[in-house]
Amino acid sequence: MKSLLLPIALLASISMPTFATSSEQSLQDAQQLREIALRSHLGYDLVESLTVEVGPRLAGTPADARAVAWAEAKFAELGFDKIYKQPVEVRHWERGDASASIISPFPQPLAITALGDSVATPAGGITGEIVFFDSVDELRAVDPKQVKGKIVYIDARMHQHREGKEYSLAVAGRSIGSSVASEKGAIALIIRSVGTDKSRMPHTGNMRYQAGVKKIPAGAISTSDAMMLMAMKKRGKAITVKMDLATTSFKPKTSYNVIGEITGTTYPDEYILISGHLDSWDEGTGALDDGAGVAIAMATAKLIKPFKPKRTIRVVLFANEEGGLIGAKQYRDANAKELHKIKLAGESDFGARSIWRFDTQVHPDNLDLMAQIAKVLKPLSINHGDNKAGGGPDVSILPAKGVPVFSLRQNGTDYFDYHHTANDTLDKINPEELRQNIAAWAVVAFITAQSEKPLLALEKNKEVKH
Amino acid sequence: MKSLLLPIALLASISMPTFATSSEQSLQDAQQLREIALRSHLGYDLVESLTVEVGPRLAGTPADARAVAWAEAKFAELGFDKIYKQPVEVRHWERGDASASIISPFPQPLAITALGDSVATPAGGITGEIVFFDSVDELRAVDPKQVKGKIVYIDARMHQHREGKEYSLAVAGRSIGSSVASEKGAIALIIRSVGTDKSRMPHTGNMRYQAGVKKIPAGAISTSDAMMLMAMKKRGKAITVKMDLATTSFKPKTSYNVIGEITGTTYPDEYILISGHLDSWDEGTGALDDGAGVAIAMATAKLIKPFKPKRTIRVVLFANEEGGLIGAKQYRDANAKELHKIKLAGESDFGARSIWRFDTQVHPDNLDLMAQIAKVLKPLSINHGDNKAGGGPDVSILPAKGVPVFSLRQNGTDYFDYHHTANDTLDKINPEELRQNIAAWAVVAFITAQSEKPLLALEKNKEVKH
Repeated sequence: MKSLLLPIALLASISMPTFATSSEQSLQDAQQLREIALRSHLGYDLVESLTVEVGPRLAGTPADARAVAWAEAKFAELGFDKIYKQPVEVRHWERGDASASIISPFPQPLAITALGDSVATPAGGITGEIVFFDSVDELRAVDPKQVKGKIVYIDARMHQHREGKEYSLAVAGRSIGSSVASEKGAIALIIRSVGTDKSRMPHTGNMRYQAGVKKIPAGAISTSDAMMLMAMKKRGKAITVKMDLATTSFKPKTSYNVIGEITGTTYPDEYILISGHLDSWDEGTGALDDGAGVAIAMATAKLIKPFKPKRTIRVVLFANEEGGLIGAKQYRDANAKELHKIKLAGESDFGARSIWRFDTQVHPDNLDLMAQIAKVLKPLSINHGDNKAGGGPDVSILPAKGVPVFSLRQNGTDYFDYHHTANDTLDKINPEELRQNIAAWAVVAFITAQSEKPLLALEKNKEVKH
Repeated sequence: MKSLLLPIALLASISMPTFATSSEQSLQDAQQLREIALRSHLGYDLVESLTVEVGPRLAGTPADARAVAWAEAKFAELGFDKIYKQPVEVRHWERGDASASIISPFPQPLAITALGDSVATPAGGITGEIVFFDSVDELRAVDPKQVKGKIVYIDARMHQHREGKEYSLAVAGRSIGSSVASEKGAIALIIRSVGTDKSRMPHTGNMRYQAGVKKIPAGAISTSDAMMLMAMKKRGKAITVKMDLATTSFKPKTSYNVIGEITGTTYPDEYILISGHLDSWDEGTGALDDGAGVAIAMATAKLIKPFKPKRTIRVVLFANEEGGLIGAKQYRDANAKELHKIKLAGESDFGARSIWRFDTQVHPDNLDLMAQIAKVLKPLSINHGDNKAGGGPDVSILPAKGVPVFSLRQNGTDYFDYHHTANDTLDKINPEELRQNIAAWAVVAFITAQSEKPLLALEKNKEVKH
């Protein structure tokens, strides 16, 4: 942060809408905070620091432990009032080498990556004929005879979209494809990468073996290789592939949710929770997923501090999101009796592009406050959306416990070009767009922290739509 | 090719400029040929066939031999009148595995590739402190004491440009950096990839050890890693890197220039030579470099055939361009006494984007013919350039022997995003732009083949500027 004070001319130029539930002073502060955030390098410096000084940080690995140490040290360096960590038992799986190639009819290598948690192939690799499917549903419908002893290939596609809409469809093959294939007697699974790029970078990601099903090795080939393989299929000859995945599963390790707080001046026991996840996949440096979220949350709180928030700003850097919200579930359960103190929660975990919409899931009585926030967000080109927000992966499990959440929705058009690949690196982050993010987060967190009206819990255990 | 005949309406719409040295019929044919080429899938089908059925084809490898067989079979399938091959002794080097990582102060892996012809590191890799340079010139100027026993890193950058202008500057580190570093006592060379992308794809490419200099291993890290490394350097601590390159040099092998001809009806002993190179680097499938060139040359001749060219259209698919124009030099020397029969030559070897300019290097008395060609190219949005063309890498050595050449210059803005990487794959080719290429090549080759005026040689052994 370069300077706390805006030039008089700039302050004078800020127009003042009429507000209801926040004091004039806090709204004026929020606008000043927004302008300071738009000029601050802090967020970029943080994600650079994490990606350069730690780099990839797969849960359970020594790099994950270095990331935890980095976060504690960084919170301290930034002058957070309270810094602590919460142990989380995490899966420890490592990728090792991965290779694949077409053996016949036209030999050539394939760019492949193991899916997270995949078992290894037998030493020397596994070889089999490919059977092609467009989706898991098509695989489910097939006669097991057509699959038995073969390698299942699923070619589910997704296209660029601001909201990443096709991800949930395309990801089915990655998540459960290996179990469905194994039940039908397949010896391995290969999927087209769940990504929107045209490149040789395969996308890894989480999968789970269903209980009782034989674990078969599972990998993803790059979208370029998928296109080549489909063109080879047109030639009408049986295609045999060899795949060699040298993954290893170790015993679980202890990692940590790392938490830093800026203590509230008036209501120190009420929390505005902002977050990202500290772990990343191992092939990139996790700049977008989720170094940016870590940086956004930390920078937001640091920028708010001089404005003396009335409620406590709690930054949570969750452990092992990629393993299936592992740190978040631990956080929820370990804090079960304290969750009512969290007055609003959000996570940034969709890259670092500009925010275009502000959604919430709050008690109806607090919608007027949200409308006030939306007015201060408007100069950032952010629209006010609906009250059906999920809040971000790690906090998405909190509304069922009554915790209100918000989502600052980022432009995700190219997010799935890089998602879970070696290409998730710092150079993909536009510093200006990152600053717009932090400005928006600061506005939401600060105005909520200053609210003169109580912040109400959602109805607990209600059915949540998002 | 779907159909030879244009609808009457389309033919009627072709305006007829006035011409001097070509018959009205041949110019009318050239325009029809151009329109047919713009609608033909043949070029794309060929580059798909080569990349899918052969894939990577590094000189001297079994895949290179498969590419030769592919080319012979494809010429036959396309009905070329004469098909033959010319032996070329090629270097046989293989990459094996490559890995690198930062050991200290902040351990993390680097995406690296060996430079072509690099020696291997000792088993287990080589470890050393990095010394940073911006260019080979800066390295040349340094006191050897600062380099001795260390790993030299050269961070020469290049930016996107339609003509790829910075390549020749940036490539110096790749070509001769290892020898310069070795002379000063360095133990290894690492360069920033010679590329314009922001990605984790390192770019390989040719290098040569100077005679008498100790051979040290040489690799290129991706541009993303280069950015990360430079950010790490700012932290002010010595950086130690480990690099492990498992390259192998084998004894030279015999490969082939593969040649197909459409025999001329009137002057069968006069040749219009159009070409690409058949070899590629090993990590991509060589779609852009130079599958596209192979496809353009083959499709051009095939599309011309029904128009019965007066001179012979000779398609040469050169061996081992990547090793340093090895097949081209062999072609030049083996045909030394016949080169005067080549009336015009060109090679496509700069990707598959649209052509924007037509350059030549022909005898001044033939410039009127070139102007006629330029008129027929104009509807393709191609400008007429100058008479200083190089002709393309493999044919660039022919003007010194008197052979006139032409260049159809392609938009190379993103060529160096993919050049010599694993990302050089079929999905980077836009079929429409490829068709525009082939239409232009067909116009140039056909009008020249039909010229009623003799095609004159350049002054032999003159100094050539390009």
